[in-house]
Amino acid sequence: MNRLTAFGVRLAGAISEKRSAVCVGLDPRWSSLPDTLKVGIDATDRAAMAGAIQCYCQEVIDAVAPVAAVVKPQAAFFEQLGPAGMQVLAKVVAHAQRCDLIVLMDAKRGDIGSTAEGYADAYLGAGSAWGCDALTVNPYLGQDTLEPFVQVADQRHAGLFVLVKTSNPGSGFLQDQPSEDGRKIYEVVADHVQDLACQAAGEVAYGNVGAVVGATYPEQLAELRQRMPNVWILIPGFGAQGGTAADVRHGFDAHGSGALVNSSRGIIFAYQQPRYAHLDWKTAVAQAAADMRSELADAIAGD
Amino acid sequence: MNRLTAFGVRLAGAISEKRSAVCVGLDPRWSSLPDTLKVGIDATDRAAMAGAIQCYCQEVIDAVAPVAAVVKPQAAFFEQLGPAGMQVLAKVVAHAQRCDLIVLMDAKRGDIGSTAEGYADAYLGAGSAWGCDALTVNPYLGQDTLEPFVQVADQRHAGLFVLVKTSNPGSGFLQDQPSEDGRKIYEVVADHVQDLACQAAGEVAYGNVGAVVGATYPEQLAELRQRMPNVWILIPGFGAQGGTAADVRHGFDAHGSGALVNSSRGIIFAYQQPRYAHLDWKTAVAQAAADMRSELADAIAGD
Repeated sequence: MNRLTAFGVRLAGAISEKRSAVCVGLDPRWSSLPDTLKVGIDATDRAAMAGAIQCYCQEVIDAVAPVAAVVKPQAAFFEQLGPAGMQVLAKVVAHAQRCDLIVLMDAKRGDIGSTAEGYADAYLGAGSAWGCDALTVNPYLGQDTLEPFVQVADQRHAGLFVLVKTSNPGSGFLQDQPSEDGRKIYEVVADHVQDLACQAAGEVAYGNVGAVVGATYPEQLAELRQRMPNVWILIPGFGAQGGTAADVRHGFDAHGSGALVNSSRGIIFAYQQPRYAHLDWKTAVAQAAADMRSELADAIAGD
Repeated sequence: MNRLTAFGVRLAGAISEKRSAVCVGLDPRWSSLPDTLKVGIDATDRAAMAGAIQCYCQEVIDAVAPVAAVVKPQAAFFEQLGPAGMQVLAKVVAHAQRCDLIVLMDAKRGDIGSTAEGYADAYLGAGSAWGCDALTVNPYLGQDTLEPFVQVADQRHAGLFVLVKTSNPGSGFLQDQPSEDGRKIYEVVADHVQDLACQAAGEVAYGNVGAVVGATYPEQLAELRQRMPNVWILIPGFGAQGGTAADVRHGFDAHGSGALVNSSRGIIFAYQQPRYAHLDWKTAVAQAAADMRSELADAIAGD
């Protein structure tokens, strides 16, 4: 994959080539890992745990690479293992890119001025410390704190996904509040993200700037698809959190484009589900990812 | 320092013992480091850069330990150096604690459910991977996403500082919007943080839960002090960002308690200021921290 191509073009290419809007969330919770990987490891030995998590993530990546466009490592589960976990995170990113997957780091970073620049510099683009293709960012601190991320993303052909409406039950606490002019807070963020996307998009329909909108809020997803016509939508909350293929199709445009659907537990821990219990864990993961791709394709085609 | 004592008690003890509400922000921007530490280091060699940053941070910690209660490492500048930077971050945290300083990790984390639990488990308390005394957290995702942080903080005698009103010029973008019942978004967050603090506080005036309120908004600081009577306030934006001792005194209660004032650049890069240019860099750092302590003490006493 040529990492000098604009992120939006690269992502569209990956989705088209794989015929897949599947994003696989890499959330390696220790307690959920296959027992075979945990044998003989003391759960206080973070270096050994990190080694097992590396092995697990790399096997998951190999299993899903044929049918997924993107993988999304969840930074928290690597940070939880301290420096050893962070070393493994870098190796997992590199492994996914060797497998020709786009890597979206789910770190939900956000800070002011030069600190935001520090985070952007850390994660975005080939040659950065973590070398990711894209990063999730939190808008609570204000629009000025998104600028450094946008600038670095543009310079490095990388992408951003700004949290707009998150999938958790309490996301309305702040996000659904009405603003001064009657728009809800998530709509204020959405309109700003659309502006950023237009500035950066250039000649393509979808550029470097995306938004996160939970599958668990299908009405808002439909509204936000209209409201942000040039914004990639990353849709978490599919599967284990309750979002269905029928729910997420609202996130796609009339051409069946413009969205990525994430599943974490539903794929990477598929071996815990009765539906896949007859398979070995890697086959279960591969099968769950393939099934998700089919479900999404059917839902989009059904429009 | 006994890390089995509740965070609020420990923080109050440190402030009282040092007669200081000074929090020193460790933001080791490579470009601002003293030249002597950078000699011979190639700015693409992240391991060597991380080594220099470790040395720098440890020297800063030694210089400020007599007059500061808390140090606040800014995670972004360590993440920027990749895994090598994260190893150094762990060493810097341990060094500060050996110097009897409270370590507040400024990472502004926030995520849903078990991911929030992962971040809390990563950073909070003795025995955690990073072993910090407290962590800054972002409330945009909703009140349910703060719960895991509060629970882990309570279990581990650690502290939390929730972003309420940040110091940057654009913080009003979302934070100043009016909510459904007329309260501003930052007030909605503040009231919730006060509730969390009361649940967790037990028998002390200030418990494990704090808020971040920028020195650059002195009116809001005064209002928020009244609104959150049991909440520690961390006040960034002092010095380089424009906040003065007169501004920040609004964050303290009638007894001159309940707040911590952070300065980063103003102290750690004091050698770049004309006022301290005649001193070697370490003496400049020590002097700037001592001066800030005096300025704060005078402002609080002047109430």
